Amino acid sequence: MADAGRHALHVVLLAGGSGTRFWPASRVRRPKQFLALGGRRPLIEDAWRRARRLAPAERLWVVAPRPLARSVRAALPELAAERLVIEPSPRDTGPAIALAVASVARVAPQAVIGVFPTDHVIVDVSAFTRSVRAAVAAARDGALVCLGVRPDRPATGFGYLLCAEPPIAGRAVPVSRFVEKPVLSRARRYLADGRYLWNAGMFVWTAQSFLAELQRTAPEIDTAVSRHLSGARGAWERAPKLSVDYAVMEHARGVAVVALDAGWDDVGSWDAAARLREAAGLAVGTHIAIDSPGSVIVGERRIVALVGVPDVVVVDTADALLVVSRAQAESVRAAVEELRKRGRDDLL
Amino acid sequence: MADAGRHALHVVLLAGGSGTRFWPASRVRRPKQFLALGGRRPLIEDAWRRARRLAPAERLWVVAPRPLARSVRAALPELAAERLVIEPSPRDTGPAIALAVASVARVAPQAVIGVFPTDHVIVDVSAFTRSVRAAVAAARDGALVCLGVRPDRPATGFGYLLCAEPPIAGRAVPVSRFVEKPVLSRARRYLADGRYLWNAGMFVWTAQSFLAELQRTAPEIDTAVSRHLSGARGAWERAPKLSVDYAVMEHARGVAVVALDAGWDDVGSWDAAARLREAAGLAVGTHIAIDSPGSVIVGERRIVALVGVPDVVVVDTADALLVVSRAQAESVRAAVEELRKRGRDDLL
Repeated sequence: MADAGRHALHVVLLAGGSGTRFWPASRVRRPKQFLALGGRRPLIEDAWRRARRLAPAERLWVVAPRPLARSVRAALPELAAERLVIEPSPRDTGPAIALAVASVARVAPQAVIGVFPTDHVIVDVSAFTRSVRAAVAAARDGALVCLGVRPDRPATGFGYLLCAEPPIAGRAVPVSRFVEKPVLSRARRYLADGRYLWNAGMFVWTAQSFLAELQRTAPEIDTAVSRHLSGARGAWERAPKLSVDYAVMEHARGVAVVALDAGWDDVGSWDAAARLREAAGLAVGTHIAIDSPGSVIVGERRIVALVGVPDVVVVDTADALLVVSRAQAESVRAAVEELRKRGRDDLL
Repeated sequence: MADAGRHALHVVLLAGGSGTRFWPASRVRRPKQFLALGGRRPLIEDAWRRARRLAPAERLWVVAPRPLARSVRAALPELAAERLVIEPSPRDTGPAIALAVASVARVAPQAVIGVFPTDHVIVDVSAFTRSVRAAVAAARDGALVCLGVRPDRPATGFGYLLCAEPPIAGRAVPVSRFVEKPVLSRARRYLADGRYLWNAGMFVWTAQSFLAELQRTAPEIDTAVSRHLSGARGAWERAPKLSVDYAVMEHARGVAVVALDAGWDDVGSWDAAARLREAAGLAVGTHIAIDSPGSVIVGERRIVALVGVPDVVVVDTADALLVVSRAQAESVRAAVEELRKRGRDDLL
């Protein structure tokens, strides 16, 4: 990774997000990646530390919407101002990633770029690093490489990547097809099949390969980004709101995948966060729980006592308190929606 | 009630208590009667208002342990300092009531005295007033009169009074027997029988009748109280710790009972408080509840959102938060006990 010359690896961290699933710990101005959901550090700090194992700070970039810029800088003091790429407004991952890649390409046209979310948990950082290295090797040969998480359950919440051949650790294989989020029966078949990996939104490619495919598959994004970088007012807002999968990857040539077995978790709800906190021994902590197995308390503001309430998550913040059944963790959004209806934007 | 002369009615309100069942809203220094469990006012204020319908403020007394004196005065600004009787240390209701009665007798030896707890809810104050008037009439004839609550369910948490004849509204009948807290099958028989009333700890008697029976049935208490009132150091601590039922009423002569049908509730736990708050329309209030029927939020410090947690009580205070299943409301004591074990007396 130390080859800072031709095809040196740059890392782009994606720091957007809306912050509804983890309300009230997360807010519009403090989405999920700023929370210590996996352990003791905010997820974005862990993402930075992983990136630092891949490249020096001078080759680390973050793309974030303007309202989060201050929080990003506070969380990542090593990040240089010129490598914080601001999305003028949220237009999904297609334009955001295109903007970041084009920004890198302006200073390092030969760069290999790894693109990673900042709101996931990865337990085995060494395994992650090995997979990225394999992806970098394939990217240098021109492929657009996904990291595909090897499934351990028939998840219905993720898209899948169908590999052309059974994926082997440390080696890129071609992707045959991007697959939509499946129903459970289909997800079970994918799990049994062995050739399906979760699409976790992690990519490695050269700037050149990506921008060539972007131009071909999503020319409106390519144009909007180029004009925006040239200072054209209003150019950004003409980029269609598309994910990078829809905009580029599903139509691109030379798409490959490297399997990732690194204890990846997207921490999709308070239930998932509760699972991680239990694993980290943070479930109840210094609080009190009587007849309340499986319950988790988030917040150290004051003592919380649970009596006879199993499998709940309690989230204690300065201005809002949430008590949610782990089985209904997805419905936190409904509470946030209710607040919005009541005009309580101060709490969002 | 306006006869301020011979046998004028004085009221003694009992304001002791430990404050564990309603933790964290109640504390050692703020037991249950200082909470607005039944509606919008602290229970002790409602008790004072009921008493004011029976007698003018100049004939209203409160007996309380020293650590609660300040809270009592703050809650009851009409209470004159000389009618706040301080228990030097808690020795159960026998000595406390004896001390209060003896204190009243010093200034009004001919008084009729009504003794009432301050931590109960009474919905129908007019019915209460009528029952007290009937009790006062019987007391003037020399009886020691209990107010007995007509049961509406086979409660196992109260003692019962067996009436010598079926109790009729507005008329005192002799008590045949004091009955211990029964098991459920027995409580069902009591309910069906019609002659059993709950012993709610409310009494009316003349000072003379009570003190005569006290001297006969519990001379150690009588002596301790007399000597304490004469200024003898350490006298109080020699009074045996006994309830007024054990010390006097179960052995006294001329004990009668007036039935009370006034929506009495002793508010024995957070579950009972939740029931009252639901009835008062205070269950969730300005908070948010999604898929959480039967749940109640106590505290207006900040917004509380409940998602998928039916039948819980959430009690939100500055330094402690409780989430308790209504079915396990009795176990709040275990949480308090755990705090005590951990040396967190600051939270008790």
